[in-house]
Amino acid sequence: MANEKKVGVLLSGCGVYDGSEIHESVLTLLCLEQNGLQAVCLAPDIEQHHVIDHTNGEELSEKRNVLVEASRIARGNIKPVKNFPIESIDALAMPGGFGVAKNFTKWAFEGVEGSIEPQIKDLIVKVVKAGKPIVALCMSPTTVARALQGTGIKADLTVGTNASKSLYDIAAIGSEMKKAGANPVMCEVDEIVVDPKNKIISSPCYMMDVSITEIYKGIEKTIAKLAEMLKDS
Amino acid sequence: MANEKKVGVLLSGCGVYDGSEIHESVLTLLCLEQNGLQAVCLAPDIEQHHVIDHTNGEELSEKRNVLVEASRIARGNIKPVKNFPIESIDALAMPGGFGVAKNFTKWAFEGVEGSIEPQIKDLIVKVVKAGKPIVALCMSPTTVARALQGTGIKADLTVGTNASKSLYDIAAIGSEMKKAGANPVMCEVDEIVVDPKNKIISSPCYMMDVSITEIYKGIEKTIAKLAEMLKDS
Repeated sequence: MANEKKVGVLLSGCGVYDGSEIHESVLTLLCLEQNGLQAVCLAPDIEQHHVIDHTNGEELSEKRNVLVEASRIARGNIKPVKNFPIESIDALAMPGGFGVAKNFTKWAFEGVEGSIEPQIKDLIVKVVKAGKPIVALCMSPTTVARALQGTGIKADLTVGTNASKSLYDIAAIGSEMKKAGANPVMCEVDEIVVDPKNKIISSPCYMMDVSITEIYKGIEKTIAKLAEMLKDS
Repeated sequence: MANEKKVGVLLSGCGVYDGSEIHESVLTLLCLEQNGLQAVCLAPDIEQHHVIDHTNGEELSEKRNVLVEASRIARGNIKPVKNFPIESIDALAMPGGFGVAKNFTKWAFEGVEGSIEPQIKDLIVKVVKAGKPIVALCMSPTTVARALQGTGIKADLTVGTNASKSLYDIAAIGSEMKKAGANPVMCEVDEIVVDPKNKIISSPCYMMDVSITEIYKGIEKTIAKLAEMLKDS
């Protein structure tokens, strides 16, 4: 469809422990199409921080490329982030997985003090400043917070809640996000946090100890909200 | 839930061109849980036939293990096929991807003449002979056909239809399946083929030139039919 709105889907590899969380990525692609939105998969052409054997959590001695591995989720239909023309997309969606905190930033190792990949910071800042919506799932709000650090933009963002079954110390991650200038909000897996001013929608997904049908509910709500924002724009 | 029926989800790697098709695998996991069925991910602990760069289709010089790569889709929660006790599952679901025709059999290179991995043949034959249902998506009916070759079991199976937008010559694949003793049936992406005698349900998914919402419809129907079969059993 010629008038279909396009949404960049920013991937960080292929696999929860060293790349994009696969379930969140696929369900994002599904929900985008269910809402009449066209996905444009994107990933940086950089080396992964490391490669993890997902059967036991051990680091392997291999090297892999983020774009090449992410293309598995995209079935080959993917573009590099560098020099990607943001005028060709109407919004950006970021699934989670440790890849966002290992390949996009070094949050998994150094929190807010860790560096951010310049092309990722550039993409996120440009999208927010252009007034285009961002969807940030699971751990990816930490990358959004880190990207917006120093811009004066104070975004409402969630990575979950300590009040329910969480896999991580959500409050501690929130404290780090505050240092970057963001406003962390507690939120359950079937809920979303909307920052209407900055047009950022976030939902916890697998930051919580939940199953695939539960993250699907959160992603459905998130993308429905995105579709509503894009309809009004 | 103690009475939850368990369904083995047989994976062949992680990525459409050298392993399991990721969208089909994730949507199978989603639909199983939506139907109150518990997924038990399985993969053989063997080397992949090869590793494909999904951005350009080129073969890489790396070696990867089917179980290790499949564990990315399973978020680490996966068991090896060899010596897996089939009495612990009530059914088996097989997503597609070239992994079934490169790692489970050599169908992608030699058709029905290619070898089949003995532990895969053993698993499929035991499940069918135990009267437990099998779901076969996309290209995986070729593996079922090859596994049942020589058993005298003539299964109705589909890998799609030439009558609609297909990515492959479906009739030619059907001819090969006939040589294995199966009965190939033409079928559209939003349809399923049910073999009530052998309890095998198949649907074409990405054998056709379709999108993620279209394969989701086929998988939804397939798993709903599986749930119905398991309720009656």
